[in-house]
Amino acid sequence: MNKYCFGMDVGGTTVKCGLFTADGEVVDKWEIKTRTEYDGMRILPDIAETIKAKMEERNLTAEEIAGVGIGVPGPVNDKGEVPCAVNLHWGFTQVEKDLTELTGLKVKAGNDANVAALGELWKGGGAGCHNMIMVTLGTGVGGGIIVNDKVIAGAHGAGGEIGHAHVDDTIKEPCNCGAYGCLEQIASATGIARLANNLLNETDAPSLMREEAEVTAKVVFDAVKKNDVLAIQVAEKFGSCLGKALASFASVADPEIIVIGGGVSKAGPVLLDFIIPTYKKYAFSGCKETEFALAELGNDAGIYGAAKLVLQ
Amino acid sequence: MNKYCFGMDVGGTTVKCGLFTADGEVVDKWEIKTRTEYDGMRILPDIAETIKAKMEERNLTAEEIAGVGIGVPGPVNDKGEVPCAVNLHWGFTQVEKDLTELTGLKVKAGNDANVAALGELWKGGGAGCHNMIMVTLGTGVGGGIIVNDKVIAGAHGAGGEIGHAHVDDTIKEPCNCGAYGCLEQIASATGIARLANNLLNETDAPSLMREEAEVTAKVVFDAVKKNDVLAIQVAEKFGSCLGKALASFASVADPEIIVIGGGVSKAGPVLLDFIIPTYKKYAFSGCKETEFALAELGNDAGIYGAAKLVLQ
Repeated sequence: MNKYCFGMDVGGTTVKCGLFTADGEVVDKWEIKTRTEYDGMRILPDIAETIKAKMEERNLTAEEIAGVGIGVPGPVNDKGEVPCAVNLHWGFTQVEKDLTELTGLKVKAGNDANVAALGELWKGGGAGCHNMIMVTLGTGVGGGIIVNDKVIAGAHGAGGEIGHAHVDDTIKEPCNCGAYGCLEQIASATGIARLANNLLNETDAPSLMREEAEVTAKVVFDAVKKNDVLAIQVAEKFGSCLGKALASFASVADPEIIVIGGGVSKAGPVLLDFIIPTYKKYAFSGCKETEFALAELGNDAGIYGAAKLVLQ
Repeated sequence: MNKYCFGMDVGGTTVKCGLFTADGEVVDKWEIKTRTEYDGMRILPDIAETIKAKMEERNLTAEEIAGVGIGVPGPVNDKGEVPCAVNLHWGFTQVEKDLTELTGLKVKAGNDANVAALGELWKGGGAGCHNMIMVTLGTGVGGGIIVNDKVIAGAHGAGGEIGHAHVDDTIKEPCNCGAYGCLEQIASATGIARLANNLLNETDAPSLMREEAEVTAKVVFDAVKKNDVLAIQVAEKFGSCLGKALASFASVADPEIIVIGGGVSKAGPVLLDFIIPTYKKYAFSGCKETEFALAELGNDAGIYGAAKLVLQ
C-alpha cells in the first residue's frame, strides 16, 4: 500500500519539497517559502499544509504514504527533536512529534547535511555504496558520514561536522563557530575566496583572477582551468588541506567512497585532481584506494535523502 | 538455551580465552600459546581444540553455546575473512568459516582493537554508553569507533585505524606503516619514549628521567607525578597532539565518551589532565563536553569484546 513518500528539505529561505515513489522516483517537485517570522512557528504548519494539498491534488490517501522525511539546518537528536536551528529562528522544536500531529503521517527528521549525504548515497555520487563520507563545500563546509546505509548523527547531533575539524594553526581570524583554523576556513567557497584574495594581495604577479570584480571559488577554478599560476597555487593549498583532512577522517570511518558536493563541486573533476594526491599521501595504507566522486544531485540531494530517511 | 559463549583474543604470543555467560559474567579464563609456525595454520585448530576441551570439562553441549567471538590482529571484512595478519603469519584466512567448520559453532570475527573497544563499551570504561571512540595507547596506537553499539569495521577493515592519522609534518623517521607523522609516532608508548629521549638529548636540564636505564612511557609519567619539568613538557606535547587529533575524530563520529586504554593508560587520571584541555580547545562546540574515561578491563577487554561480538 505504501507507494509514496514525501521528502522535505528545509532551508532558511525555501522548503524544497518532493513526492517520491518508494523506489526513489520523483513524482513531483516544488518549493514553498520558509516563513521564519514569529520564531519560525509557521514552518511546520506550512509544510503540513503543502503535503495535504499535494495529497488532495493527486488523490492520495494516508495509507498510500509511507511517511515524511525532513531535513533541517540544525542538530537533530534520536527523538527527532532540534535543540535550536538559527536559520529557521527555532528554539527547541519537536519536529517529528509536531509534524506527525499536523499530518497524521509518520515523520523522520535529520540534519540537512546528513540527509543530503543519504540522498547522494541512494541516488547520486555514492549510489551502490553503503559506507561514505560526504563533504559539502558551500558557504560553509558540512559533512555526512554513512556507515552501513545509516547516517552517523552523533551523540550530540554533531556527527559529520567535519567542517569544524581543526586543520591549520596559522589562521588568526575566527571561524563562524568561534574556533580558529577550521577546515571550513580553507575549503569552503568563502575559504577559497579568502585564500585567493590573500595571495593576490601578497604578490604583484599577473593572474586572470585580477580581472574579476569579485574573486569567488568559481573564479578561482575557472582560472585554474586556464592554467593560471596563482589560481593553481590556491587550488593546491585548498586540495592539500582537504586531502589531508579527509585522510584523517578515513582513518576513523574507512568509507568505500568519498563524495564531494556543494557549490564548489560544480568546478568538476579538476577539483579531485587537487584533493586525491594529498589524500593518497596521508591515508592509511588500507584506505589509499578509496574511491572519490562528485555529488550528482545538486540541490535535490536533500529531498532524496529525506525521502530515504523515512523509507529506511 | 544459549547460556554461554566463548570470547577469544588472538595475539602474537598467546590466545586469551574466556567462557562467558550471556549477560557477560566470566565463568572461566585461560590462555593457550599462539603457534605461528607453518604460516600460523595451527592457530585456529588449537583454538577449536581448547574450546572443545573446555566444553567437555564443563559438560556443555553445543546447544548451550551462543557461539565464539574472536578478535584477531589484522583487518577483518564483513565475511569474517582476514586478508593478512602479519603477527600471526597469516595470509588470507577465512576465520569465521574455518572456525565454524572446526567447532560446529557460530563464529564472529573482528579486528582486535575494535573488539577491545566493544569490550570496554560493554563492561569497562564506556559501560552504559552506545557511542564511543576508544584509543589504545600501547606499542602502537589502535582505535575502535562504536556507533549505536556496533563497531565501525570500515570498507577495507581499516575503521578506527586512528593511530595512522597524520598529525605532525616535522617527523622525519617513518612510522611502522611507512608514512611519516602518524599519531602513533607521538602518542604510543614508543612515541612518548622517543619524545622524552629527544628532549633529554636537546638539553642538559636535570630530570628524574635521567636516573633510569631506559626511558619508557611509564618512566615519563612517574616523573610527571613528581613534577619533573622535562617530563611535564613531554606529557604536554603528547597530550596536545592526542587531544587535537581526538577533537578531529569527534567531528566525524561525535561520541558520547572517549575511552583511553592500552599500557600507557596505566599512568592513570593524570593522563587525561594533559589530553582534555587541548581536546576542549579544538573540539566543535557540540562535542566540547564529551566525557573522557580510562579503560578498565586491561588485557581482558579483548575477550569481553569478542564475547559481545557473538552475542550481538
